Amino acid sequence: MTSGGSAPAATTRPAPRGAYRRLSVEERRAELLAAALGLFAHRPPEDVSLDDVAAAAGASRPLVYRYFPGGKQQLYEAAIGSAAEQLRGCFTEPQTGPPTQRLSRVLTRYLAFVDEHDAGFSALLQGGSVAETSRTNAIVDGVRRAAAEQILIHLGTPEPGPRLRMMVRVWITAVEAASLIWLDEGKQPPLDELRTWLVDHFVALLTATAARDEETARVARATLALEGSEGAVADLTRRILPLVDDAAHLL
Amino acid sequence: MTSGGSAPAATTRPAPRGAYRRLSVEERRAELLAAALGLFAHRPPEDVSLDDVAAAAGASRPLVYRYFPGGKQQLYEAAIGSAAEQLRGCFTEPQTGPPTQRLSRVLTRYLAFVDEHDAGFSALLQGGSVAETSRTNAIVDGVRRAAAEQILIHLGTPEPGPRLRMMVRVWITAVEAASLIWLDEGKQPPLDELRTWLVDHFVALLTATAARDEETARVARATLALEGSEGAVADLTRRILPLVDDAAHLL
Repeated sequence: MTSGGSAPAATTRPAPRGAYRRLSVEERRAELLAAALGLFAHRPPEDVSLDDVAAAAGASRPLVYRYFPGGKQQLYEAAIGSAAEQLRGCFTEPQTGPPTQRLSRVLTRYLAFVDEHDAGFSALLQGGSVAETSRTNAIVDGVRRAAAEQILIHLGTPEPGPRLRMMVRVWITAVEAASLIWLDEGKQPPLDELRTWLVDHFVALLTATAARDEETARVARATLALEGSEGAVADLTRRILPLVDDAAHLL
Repeated sequence: MTSGGSAPAATTRPAPRGAYRRLSVEERRAELLAAALGLFAHRPPEDVSLDDVAAAAGASRPLVYRYFPGGKQQLYEAAIGSAAEQLRGCFTEPQTGPPTQRLSRVLTRYLAFVDEHDAGFSALLQGGSVAETSRTNAIVDGVRRAAAEQILIHLGTPEPGPRLRMMVRVWITAVEAASLIWLDEGKQPPLDELRTWLVDHFVALLTATAARDEETARVARATLALEGSEGAVADLTRRILPLVDDAAHLL
């Protein structure tokens, strides 16, 4: 659909200089931001200078300051905000098919992001950086909230009780912790093994939480009903059964 | 045992003034530190002043500065160090009886610590505080390492492979995250329910990790063999079985 009301004016008059300039400003700002994010992705913020950003964007230092008068800190926060947007994009997934396959696809995208922003991801989440502020923390918390919201939508409980909500939030923290350890260990194990383990962890935690919480038990039942006999839950169950047999003395 | 070499000198001469003074210095330092920890436990560091510490210890501001020339930041780091010592003490547990009972006792002490140091615990671990430094982060990491070491000793694998080590580290992060959420939610659910859930989480994660890692499978078998038919693992298994029955279509 086109906006009929303003179209005639646009065709009879040249685009006003203000509008043209505004677009150019946004484009240049995006360019500087992309250059900054590229640098902040692979180095801790203390190892990135404003001159580095200017050089990477093919711009001058005064030009960078014109767009980001707050200097490096403002650039860093803008880069974190832009990375957060990318991450939110990773989380959306159609609500069809076995839930563990959906989770697996989201984790594939998330872990690719972690891989691509390795040093920056570590610096941001490990804390203690001078560039860490209440604003960067708020951005990170916003990403965590977005991840939790998406998971709860797929579990069919956008407004969960405290136990299920805690379970989802704790699992998200576990994913972050595993990602940091993965980076710390030279990106071992291979990403697909890490992803499989994180999915297994989710299934195990959902099941364990269901043991003492009625709401989680309902959600777990509905979720498991959507899984297939060749899927991740079936595979995990088959692998765990020998262990359960060995523990027969408990029952 | 007494140190025979220096004992005679100590009995024939009065204690030198230096030794007497040194003891007094240590006592006073401990007093100031205890007052500081008491304050930092219940308020974020930015809400505690050097005057608050002096007042709480019944001391003057210059006296506090004599013992802690680095002022509030030094006091904060010393208080964190002292809290870390307390926490390490919580982690040691005899290697007898069902492992989930040992874990449960450690968690009871850990969660009591969290309860007693609520606002300080949140401020330290949530990040973004001005008092957070590479030194406070190193202290926190040291506590995490101590916790992991203790768990691995109880699992009989002080030198584990990467998968089991990652599992233990990730679970420790999950305990921290759950503690922060618990504080954030006005200390709900009751501590014993939170503790039970964390033990269930450990058992579930160990089992899920055992599904694809030989070492973890061996450790899990040996650990489960020590559990009793009335214990936490038996209870969890009984509660999960109906859910597994419902998921029979998977097998």
